[in-house]
Amino acid sequence: QARFFALRSNKAFELFVVSVILFSALVIGAKTYDMPPALLTVIGWLDVGITLFFLVEITVRFLGEPDKKRFFHNAWNIFDTLIVVVSLIPIEDSEMALVGRLIRIFRVLRMVSIVPELRVLLNSLLKALPQLGYVILLMFIIFYIYAAIGATFFAGINDTLWGDISIAMLTLFRVMTFEDWTDVMYETMAVYPLSWFFYLTFIFLTTFAFLNMVIGIVVNVMET
Amino acid sequence: QARFFALRSNKAFELFVVSVILFSALVIGAKTYDMPPALLTVIGWLDVGITLFFLVEITVRFLGEPDKKRFFHNAWNIFDTLIVVVSLIPIEDSEMALVGRLIRIFRVLRMVSIVPELRVLLNSLLKALPQLGYVILLMFIIFYIYAAIGATFFAGINDTLWGDISIAMLTLFRVMTFEDWTDVMYETMAVYPLSWFFYLTFIFLTTFAFLNMVIGIVVNVMET
Amino acid sequence: QARFFALRSNKAFELFVVSVILFSALVIGAKTYDMPPALLTVIGWLDVGITLFFLVEITVRFLGEPDKKRFFHNAWNIFDTLIVVVSLIPIEDSEMALVGRLIRIFRVLRMVSIVPELRVLLNSLLKALPQLGYVILLMFIIFYIYAAIGATFFAGINDTLWGDISIAMLTLFRVMTFEDWTDVMYETMAVYPLSWFFYLTFIFLTTFAFLNMVIGIVVNVMET
Amino acid sequence: QARFFALRSNKAFELFVVSVILFSALVIGAKTYDMPPALLTVIGWLDVGITLFFLVEITVRFLGEPDKKRFFHNAWNIFDTLIVVVSLIPIEDSEMALVGRLIRIFRVLRMVSIVPELRVLLNSLLKALPQLGYVILLMFIIFYIYAAIGATFFAGINDTLWGDISIAMLTLFRVMTFEDWTDVMYETMAVYPLSWFFYLTFIFLTTFAFLNMVIGIVVNVMET
Ligand code: NA
Ligand code: NA
Repeated sequence: QARFFALRSNKAFELFVVSVILFSALVIGAKTYDMPPALLTVIGWLDVGITLFFLVEITVRFLGEPDKKRFFHNAWNIFDTLIVVVSLIPIEDSEMALVGRLIRIFRVLRMVSIVPELRVLLNSLLKALPQLGYVILLMFIIFYIYAAIGATFFAGINDTLWGDISIAMLTLFRVMTFEDWTDVMYETMAVYPLSWFFYLTFIFLTTFAFLNMVIGIVVNVMET
Repeated sequence: QARFFALRSNKAFELFVVSVILFSALVIGAKTYDMPPALLTVIGWLDVGITLFFLVEITVRFLGEPDKKRFFHNAWNIFDTLIVVVSLIPIEDSEMALVGRLIRIFRVLRMVSIVPELRVLLNSLLKALPQLGYVILLMFIIFYIYAAIGATFFAGINDTLWGDISIAMLTLFRVMTFEDWTDVMYETMAVYPLSWFFYLTFIFLTTFAFLNMVIGIVVNVMET
Repeated sequence: QARFFALRSNKAFELFVVSVILFSALVIGAKTYDMPPALLTVIGWLDVGITLFFLVEITVRFLGEPDKKRFFHNAWNIFDTLIVVVSLIPIEDSEMALVGRLIRIFRVLRMVSIVPELRVLLNSLLKALPQLGYVILLMFIIFYIYAAIGATFFAGINDTLWGDISIAMLTLFRVMTFEDWTDVMYETMAVYPLSWFFYLTFIFLTTFAFLNMVIGIVVNVMET
Repeated sequence: QARFFALRSNKAFELFVVSVILFSALVIGAKTYDMPPALLTVIGWLDVGITLFFLVEITVRFLGEPDKKRFFHNAWNIFDTLIVVVSLIPIEDSEMALVGRLIRIFRVLRMVSIVPELRVLLNSLLKALPQLGYVILLMFIIFYIYAAIGATFFAGINDTLWGDISIAMLTLFRVMTFEDWTDVMYETMAVYPLSWFFYLTFIFLTTFAFLNMVIGIVVNVMET
């Protein structure tokens, strides 16, 4: 076990793992291009090689862990193990094949679990979220109320945009990003001439809440 | 009265009220989907139940108030009472039915009046507004002058966008959000080739005023 | 002169002037709507009244000034006098009539010269500009170089967007606001497949320079 | 050498060099307009004159440098020399002519190498970049994973947008700038109704990472 622990902590080993992950990322990228069948076979074999290497690597890290129980207390270890185990399952079915490809893509995320600086960065990003909990809740309430109003009054005007409350929330998110929002507005203004009030108040409220969220993060970061 | 006061301050009672509000929100959302008539009847009865529960709840809170006059000094209490009273009025008319649905949707806002953290958040947002009063006034003057110029010179080019000063202000808000603003500009540039100057100065002025507003809020928040 | 000075400093007089400006703004707004001829005549007389009142007011302020030379050292006084004098010139010509309407619209800007808080705000905004001089110069150099490249290589592809260097700068400003910028890009990518590099570097550079400008203002404001 | 050094440090000489650069910028701009042949000949001669002047100027600066080796340790000197040397190569070939025009445009960038304030500004901008290294790496990983997913699942829907991983990254950048992103989404939602989840998570992640980058710059600048 001590030898596995030594291997696990070895800087050269870490660098080699990062290289394999980068290589697996390149293989994933390459697959999206049209390729001759011969190359596809090579890539198939490379895929098997990468899968096996990740199996060996996760085993080394597990065996090198002094306290076996603590290994699975780390969310990243669970994520790594899941990715490796699921990619081991042989897939024949064409529908499941897509899921298999998805799992292979998520292997690139292992980059974050290996490079400590990225892990720290992501943790600090995630730590900022709960402090914003109530602003996000307020934003959700704003979205829900406006979507309910939109779905109630505008569903008859355009069913694709306001058909039910979940579609209406997607449309409102679109309005919030200013994506062709006037097209949406002019359409409802033809029936309800005052509906510009609906859109303008929505934009003001969400922009104001969004600004507050940003300022909340700035102040949090500065005070630390 | 003491018992009502105890009930009102009870944490479990508050949680129950929040659950009913959440449930009423779900009912509102469900109504926007197509449903079999049987389910519609059930939802109709649920609606009556929620209305009655809110009537009971507001009565409890009123009776539990030691000083009856102070009850209506709180804007949230007035808002709650209004929502409950108006939703009691029986509506037959199909046009008024829409207003009735609107009132039911606004019941979700009672979430803010019940959860103290949301109330604090909203108050702090509203408190930031008056300090921005003069920036908002300046922005309105910019909008008004540009809208007057737009409605005077461009009304003949596109009546839908520049017909009168209020429509022109809506068009300028669209330009400010960068929503297909070049389409608006190219149209007027065909007649007045120098009108790009109108749009660019407007964008610079409003962006500058908006930035100032944001920075104003940041500085205000930081100094507190 | 002392009586004129007293009148000029009188709070009620200031309030009355503000009301007249607001009223003139309403008249300007009203003119953009379709109106019966009778109302147009009334508005014509109101216009003459407002012009005369402003003439009296600027005379009072000039006569009330203890040091007549200092009066024209104030940019706002020059602005006010110009607006009043130009609006006195009788205009018959239909082309000049538009200029006359423009002058009447600019009278709303007198709001800023009368309300001290707005004047202070605008001055503080203008004071922030020179400190940003070099960032703006850098941005202009970026725009100029990219516009020169665009006009040289893309003029043959779309003459309306890249015809000469000034049109190209307008197109680049459009790209900077993300307004249908992919349409512009896909068009040139059909001829030069690598031209995405042109757009992406431009967006990165200008976004980066813009962020720097914003941060520059924030830091300036905070240090004061 | 001392005389060259004196000339190099002369303020009037610097101002003259700046004027020539500005003049070369105007010549470049003028070339993008349609012109009579006579003017084109004049501009051709001006071009030769500017090239020769820059050759003289860079020679003066090189000869004026006390330590000749140090001259090429400065990145701006290398840039200047390259621009001057490349623009000396006579170009006949029509394809290379475009490269020649590009080099002439880049001469405007010499403005930055001459004006010390711009050089300082650009250096401070570039200095902020490495501190943001890991946020940019994280953003690239997010882009790569989403592009891999997009190219895998959506390539069959729209080959122009999702054909391979590099095209998919360009499309995702477009989504990040909110440029007609709902058109892209509605298209894939017709096949995969849940693909809105793909776009919304992507927008949230990149907006969040971008905000973090901005805040990172603000905090860096403020702490200095
Ligand atoms: Na758009
Ligand atoms: Na847009």
